[in-house]
This record gives sequence, structure tokens and C-alpha cells, in this order.
Amino acid sequence: MPDEFDVIVIGAGPAGENVVDRAVRGGLTAAIVEERLAGGECAYWACVPSKALLRPVDLAGEVSRVPGLSLGEIDVAAVLARRDEAVSRYDDGGQVRWIEGVPAEFVRGRGRLDGPKRVRVTLSDGGERVLTARQAVVLATGSTAAVPPVPGLAEAKPWTSHEVTAATAVPERLAVIGGGVVACEMAQAMHGLGARTTTMLVRGGVLLGRMEPFAGEMVAESFAEAGIDVRTNTGVVRVERPEPGGKVTVHLSDGPPLEADELLVATGREPATGDLGLSSVGLADGAYVEVDDSMRATGVPEGWLYAVGDVNGRALLTHMGKYQARVCGDVIAARAGGDELCAMRDLADHYGAPQVVFTDPQVCAVGRTEEGAKKAGFHARAVDYDLGSVTGAYLLGDGYRGRARAVVDEDRRVLLGVTFVGPGVGELLHAATIAVTAEVPIDRLWHAVPSFPTVSEVWLRLLEAYGL
Amino acid sequence: MPDEFDVIVIGAGPAGENVVDRAVRGGLTAAIVEERLAGGECAYWACVPSKALLRPVDLAGEVSRVPGLSLGEIDVAAVLARRDEAVSRYDDGGQVRWIEGVPAEFVRGRGRLDGPKRVRVTLSDGGERVLTARQAVVLATGSTAAVPPVPGLAEAKPWTSHEVTAATAVPERLAVIGGGVVACEMAQAMHGLGARTTTMLVRGGVLLGRMEPFAGEMVAESFAEAGIDVRTNTGVVRVERPEPGGKVTVHLSDGPPLEADELLVATGREPATGDLGLSSVGLADGAYVEVDDSMRATGVPEGWLYAVGDVNGRALLTHMGKYQARVCGDVIAARAGGDELCAMRDLADHYGAPQVVFTDPQVCAVGRTEEGAKKAGFHARAVDYDLGSVTGAYLLGDGYRGRARAVVDEDRRVLLGVTFVGPGVGELLHAATIAVTAEVPIDRLWHAVPSFPTVSEVWLRLLEAYGL
Repeated sequence: MPDEFDVIVIGAGPAGENVVDRAVRGGLTAAIVEERLAGGECAYWACVPSKALLRPVDLAGEVSRVPGLSLGEIDVAAVLARRDEAVSRYDDGGQVRWIEGVPAEFVRGRGRLDGPKRVRVTLSDGGERVLTARQAVVLATGSTAAVPPVPGLAEAKPWTSHEVTAATAVPERLAVIGGGVVACEMAQAMHGLGARTTTMLVRGGVLLGRMEPFAGEMVAESFAEAGIDVRTNTGVVRVERPEPGGKVTVHLSDGPPLEADELLVATGREPATGDLGLSSVGLADGAYVEVDDSMRATGVPEGWLYAVGDVNGRALLTHMGKYQARVCGDVIAARAGGDELCAMRDLADHYGAPQVVFTDPQVCAVGRTEEGAKKAGFHARAVDYDLGSVTGAYLLGDGYRGRARAVVDEDRRVLLGVTFVGPGVGELLHAATIAVTAEVPIDRLWHAVPSFPTVSEVWLRLLEAYGL
Repeated sequence: MPDEFDVIVIGAGPAGENVVDRAVRGGLTAAIVEERLAGGECAYWACVPSKALLRPVDLAGEVSRVPGLSLGEIDVAAVLARRDEAVSRYDDGGQVRWIEGVPAEFVRGRGRLDGPKRVRVTLSDGGERVLTARQAVVLATGSTAAVPPVPGLAEAKPWTSHEVTAATAVPERLAVIGGGVVACEMAQAMHGLGARTTTMLVRGGVLLGRMEPFAGEMVAESFAEAGIDVRTNTGVVRVERPEPGGKVTVHLSDGPPLEADELLVATGREPATGDLGLSSVGLADGAYVEVDDSMRATGVPEGWLYAVGDVNGRALLTHMGKYQARVCGDVIAARAGGDELCAMRDLADHYGAPQVVFTDPQVCAVGRTEEGAKKAGFHARAVDYDLGSVTGAYLLGDGYRGRARAVVDEDRRVLLGVTFVGPGVGELLHAATIAVTAEVPIDRLWHAVPSFPTVSEVWLRLLEAYGL
């Protein structure tokens, strides 16, 4: 086997795979190193299984709002079985074949940087292999769940996103530490699939704190109605779990201790760079790898190191990692061909990455929040509209509740950000992503007529509310 | 009561109401004349009730594809009751109050042009009133279902969109003449709500003949699987219904006669201009009223007559009528203020109106089809993608089938048209409507990243398929 390639990618998640795909399409040779499963977190322990678990819960919610329909109890075993199918039963054979078909070489093992352009791989079969890159090494190792330094917490071996999405049974009593996207989605899923009590312990005052404030408020309201106990401004001071896998006692900053059968920690992520050999090339182990808009690591001489996806800290979202990877692969191929100034750059992250939260109600947003836009110095004005007043939403079910906000740049008359909250709004987001990313003037958006009776008619209402 | 207004609108459907709203906001006085219910066809006998009937059928289809969920039989009485609620039990009190709050004068009766700027109203209470417009008269009387001149058909008093959306029971055996949007939607609704046999008699070779050919093919395939009998290339030569409201016998161009308990005719629309006094101002009774992009009727001296919505024949869609009405109201107000050249114009109709068909699978499209674009002289290239291969679609249910097509203008690298077919794709359309209407370059669309895992990721796949 040759040990020299144009491009070596460490990490075969969606980002790494896309780099390889684009670089090879650009005429280069490539190898990709993965210690665990090709396909990455997203395919096995994040986006895909979480949505497989959430879909029936979401649909049950929709059915409950439509007169004339009645649903039997959810068959949890069937839901878990479809989740297993969605994650290919944790078998990456299909992904490996896809990589080999690119074609690129798939190397199973742990890759670490070992000086410039060199990757030392501890092979899964015990051996070692040293790979050399002619053009570039790309880091795409992603991130891992951060477990905060609460006494007893690590020892309690709590669930993280990894374990909860792979659950083989629903806990009777679930405690969730965190109030972000993973915490909300998984509380929703487990509660909807039958957890008797679900308690969210949220250090801050709101859910989904990075989004428009009304988003977290509406989710919290819906959760409360569904019987999920959301405790904001609640710290966890100590955790006890005497028996491995047994009952957990969570001591709180306020009130009596909480007992649960399982504990999920979803308080953030950290880059998977602790054991990646970063120090061998002058970077800090364990830190995010800072990159420029071509995805090239800053601070590494001769510019041969790149980083895409969670590991660069720009936006911890699968679709943004894939986007960065497309940019990166194209840039590396262009530079290898002598086009050092090739035009492809990451533009999207600067506008504010789009994201969908698959709770009930769904939450989705792209660009800046009103507060974020103002802090960044824009002359921004927010317009809101009650989604429940849109005919298309009313027709989806009784008591549809939702809200939309558009943040307008008053100087340039373009959208800086858009947020939708409401059942089933996730597919509305891409219209906003196009409008924000392409900086479509609102006076032109006025001529993009939403079809009646869709929920998308809210676009008309927002522009009317703005004064058009 | 004063009988002189700046603007007089005949027809208080969504289009007429929007003219009044915009004109009054622009500082003018207005009256609006309506013989039947304020709110128009859309609110009582078209979009709104049809979607109320379709929603539970659609959702039942979604549930059937998600393992772990099981639905009881649809409670048709509850569905009809919600339909009744959606149409406000055919009471327009709320709409009339809305008009009066604009404020504008609501006149209940049949309005007819009676020479320049004059409208003669046969009041519903038997009296008569002559209204005079200082600035403009706007026709917004919409369209009615066309019943083709088949022997015995009119005498059989078949259902049209009007009756089927107001149905108080589901016929055992339904025959549908037509293969367009109304025919497909109502066949789907009645079949889903329990019609034992539903037979579509389609003169042409395909369903939804104005859209991309694969749209009608996929709907036909789904209908066949659901047990709807779609007979293409089938003409109706004679209809017999000896007893009013009784059994119908439909004689076909091919094969034995068809027996049914009810017959729906959905073969197109004609403008509601037969008895509107058009000849009093030199126009042809019964024809569409041709307008320019400011919605002003061409061929009427001094430019005081306007027409919006179905009556001008541009696009027989509620949302386009409302859009035209906003243009019209703004233009009339601007011209009244001396701004004869005001910039507001109908741009959207020239791109190709967006439309959603609420069948299972849903069909939606905006802009031009591949064939339409080529016929219009564009250097057009179509790229297709199988929606079932999108992860976000797979996660919606088992056996998700769908397809997307983007038609690219190769000279300008913008989208000329987009079509989506698949369960729940309706809300994907507005992204396409923005891209087409704003002529966003595809090289910019490349940076609008669809969120994972949504169905909208098909946008990425289409651009990849194009070669980006």
C-alpha cells in the first residue's frame, strides 16, 4: 500500500468524507483515517438516530391536534427498531464502500499528526502506519460531549448524546442536565416515548439560550403542558450513583435532591483534539483549530494543515461541517493545481448558520438574532408575526401556536436573521437561509409570493408587518 | 349613504379585499360590492375547505409510513365538523366586520358596470344603488367552474369544486371528470375519507398536465396504490341521471358505462364576467379582462378600470390574486396622488406562479417547467434528484418517494423553475419561489446551506447534481 497521498483526512464523519470527495473529484489522491465508524457521530449517535426517535413523537403531536384522527399508544420497540435501521445497526460497511468508491483509501485506526504533513496511525488491528501528505492534512475529528466538573458526575457515568440516541429502553425517570438543543430534543424524545418523569435541570434562565428568547419560552411552555418538568436557574452541585447503572441522586442548588433512573448530560461540546498530535505542529492540544475562510489552519507554517467541522469551532452542525468540507476540498484541489487564490471561501458561517431544533414546537433559525444584530452594530429592526394567525397553520390543526421573527437591516433593507417557532416549521427555514445568505432585498422578497394556504404565507405577513 | 367613492371594487374575495385594504391605506375611500359571501370562493368553497378535508387524509398517510404509530379509522363527522368551522359555517360576519374596519363600505348585492366609473348594484334586499368612482373601478369577481358541453352533464347537476368542498357526506361511489389540481385533490380527499370507489376520468394522458410530467406520474402511481381508479385518455360522451341526486351513469369513449353515486366535474374555470356589464364599457361579456402589469384593463379609455384575481386570467390562484390586488391597490393610490409612473408592478406572474397541490404525494412548483423554458427560448438545463435518497426524507417514514427538479438558465446561471413531488414538500416551495423570483445566482445558492437532516437538503443535492 502506498503511504503517500495528496490529501490525508483524519476523521471520516460527514465533514471528512466530503473533503475526500471534493479533493478526489479535483484530481487528487486521498486517504481517510477513522478510529470508530465511518460516517461519524451524525450518522450513528447524533442527528440521524435522534430524528428517528423524534419523528413518531412529533407526528403523534400533530395527530393530536387534528379532529377525526386518533392514535394508539406508540410502539416503542418498533420505534427503536427503526432507529436501529436508520443507524445501519452501527455497521459502517456501506460508508466504507462509499469511501472506497470515491475512490479514496480508508484506514481504520487512530490518526495523530506527527510533524508537518505526516500522520501516524495506530491501526485498529494493532499495527502502525505512517502516512505522508503531498498537499494537505485535514483534521475532521469532530467534538465530544463535555461533562462539567460536578462532584460525582463523571463517576456516575451519565448518558451523553452518544448513549441517549442509542438507548435500548426508555428510562422510567430521566433527569437531563442542560437546556440547549440536545437537551431539549432528547427530553422531548424520551418523554414522548414514555418516560414517566422527565426533569430538565437548566443552569440559565431559558431553554435554547442562543436563539431568540421567544423560542425557548415557547418550547418551555409546550414542555410544561406535556408534563416535562423544566427547572431553570437550577445548578447541579453533586451527583451520587452508588450502583453502576442504578438509581441516580442529583443534588441541586435549590430544593430537595432529585432521584432518577438515568441521567443525561447535554451541556455542550469540546473539540476532539486532545490526542491528535497538535503539539507536534506547534498548536495547542485540546483546543479548537482556528482556520481562515479557506479552512486552512492559521499559525501553521506553509499552510498545509486544514480543519473542517466541529473541530474548528465555527459552527457545531453537521451541515456546516459538510459545507466547510466542500469549500476545503475544492480549495486544496485548486491550490494543488497552482490556483493559490481560488475564489471558494466559507461565506455562510459569517451570516449565522441555519439550524433546526426538532422539538414540538419545532424551532429553526438562520442568521442573527435581534440582540445579536444590534450588538454587532447593525441598524436592525425586528418584526414578529403570530404563526397561529396564518390560515395555512390553522388548517394544520387545532390550537396551532407559533411565531416568526425577521430581523431587517434598515440600512441595506436585507434580512439579517429569521426565526420560526411552531409545529412542522423546519422546512420553512431554507427560504430564510437563501434570503439571508443571498442578501435578497426585502423589496424583491415582496414579489416572491407564498402559496396559499401554506404556513409559508407568514413571509407575506412579516413583510406586511414591516410596512411593505 | 354617499354613493361616490375613490375606488369601487366588485367582488369581495381575497383579491377584492386586498385592493380595498391597500387603497384605503393609501388614503382613498372605497366601497366593495359582493353578492354572495365576503371572503370569496377561497374561504368557503375552495382552498380552505379542501385543505380542511385533506389534512387528516394527508396525516393518515404520513402515520402509515412511520413504524410504531397506528391510527384508528378516520372519524368523518369530526372532519366535516372541522371543515365547517374552517369555513365559519358559511357566515361572513367576520369578513364584513373586517372590511368595515379597513374602513370601507360593504355593499351586499350584485354589481355591474354601467358605463365609465359607474357601478349599478342590485341590492340583496331588492333595491338598487348606483355607485360612482372618482378614481377607479376594480373587477374582482373571480371565476366559476366550467361544465363541458357533454350531453346530459349539466342536467345531471354534477358537483363542482363548490359542492364537493361543502359535502355533508362522502359518496359511496364517486366519479371525477378531470385530471387537474381540483380533480386530484378532491379525489384524494373523498377516497381518503371513505369513498368505496373513486374513478377519475381524464381526457388527456396524464394528471396535472401543466406541471413537470413526473409530477402527474407520481401522483397517478400513488393513487393507483391507494385504490383510486385513474383512467387516462378517457372521454365522457354522455351522462344520465334519471333521479335528481340519484345514481349517475357515465358513458365513456371507451369501455362499459360507469355507475356512480356522485359525479364531480373539475375540468377548468371560466371568468365570472358573463353578467358584469362589461359591454357597457366596450369590453366583451364573458371574457377574461386583459390587464397590464399595473392591473389596469387594456382597451378602456382613460384607464379607470382594473381587474385582479381569476377574472384577469393571469393565474387562477388565490395567492396570486392577492398579490395582484396589493399591486393594484398601491398603484391606484399612487396614481390618485399624481404618481402616474409609480414603480409597483406585477413581476411575479411573469416568472410563473407558485402552486402547491395537496395530494399524497404533494406536488409543488414555481416558475417554468423544463419544456416550458425551452419553448420560451431559454438555454435551459434540468437537473433531477430522487427525494427518497435525502436523509431528511428517509427519516420522515418508510418508503418515502419523491423527486425534485430544478431548471437552470445556463446563460445567466439562475433558476427558471423548480418542482418538488413528495409527502409534505409543500413548505419547501417558498425557498424556490424566492430563488426564482429574486434570480439568485446558483453560485450564491451554493452558500445557502440546508439544515441537516431536513428534506430541504435536496437543494444541496440538486446543486451537486448540476455540477457545483
